[in-house]
Amino acid sequence: MKKLVVPCCPPLLAGRLTLEESAQLATLFRVLSEPMRLQMLSLIAAQPNKEVCACELVETLGLSQPTVSHHLKVMYEAGLLEKERRGTWIYYRIVQEQLTALRDVLA
Amino acid sequence: MKKLVVPCCPPLLAGRLTLEESAQLATLFRVLSEPMRLQMLSLIAAQPNKEVCACELVETLGLSQPTVSHHLKVMYEAGLLEKERRGTWIYYRIVQEQLTALRDVLA
Repeated sequence: MKKLVVPCCPPLLAGRLTLEESAQLATLFRVLSEPMRLQMLSLIAAQPNKEVCACELVETLGLSQPTVSHHLKVMYEAGLLEKERRGTWIYYRIVQEQLTALRDVLA
Repeated sequence: MKKLVVPCCPPLLAGRLTLEESAQLATLFRVLSEPMRLQMLSLIAAQPNKEVCACELVETLGLSQPTVSHHLKVMYEAGLLEKERRGTWIYYRIVQEQLTALRDVLA
């Protein structure tokens, strides 16, 4: 999946979307259409330092490591998360600009 | 599907969502994860009077009547559209409050 950049798209209600624009937007909405991913995003945002490592999500959400890794990968590839390796662990943060852009699309 | 009311939910990034909140939100994002539905919303918004009848969507989008009806039904049941019968036709309008509420969730 290629990296999505929402700012490509005009606001949903500002005029008729092209097929390509609507397909890109729909892909991003689909990424957000899994309750566990929304849980993860809200959990990351609730951290004092606004980041988590996958290990923390496994423990907190009670999901398997492969499930957590899959959801993180999908959100990373959709441009909703950024990651940084520090030692053994990979830490994930929310890409605020991507959510803001999606928010603007709904304006 | 029951009528969704997004204002039930706190902003995604304001703290950890409950399972029920994340499930409701995910359902609404799933409704928006179909390119044709986004096309329909943008098309309705682009009308001077901000409404369309299903017949206009069939013609403009080149979809079958059952496909258009299905998408309209899903968006109506998700609280994204309201409808009004006038004579033979049913007219659809966007429920702006629902999109605004979803926008606020992404704040």
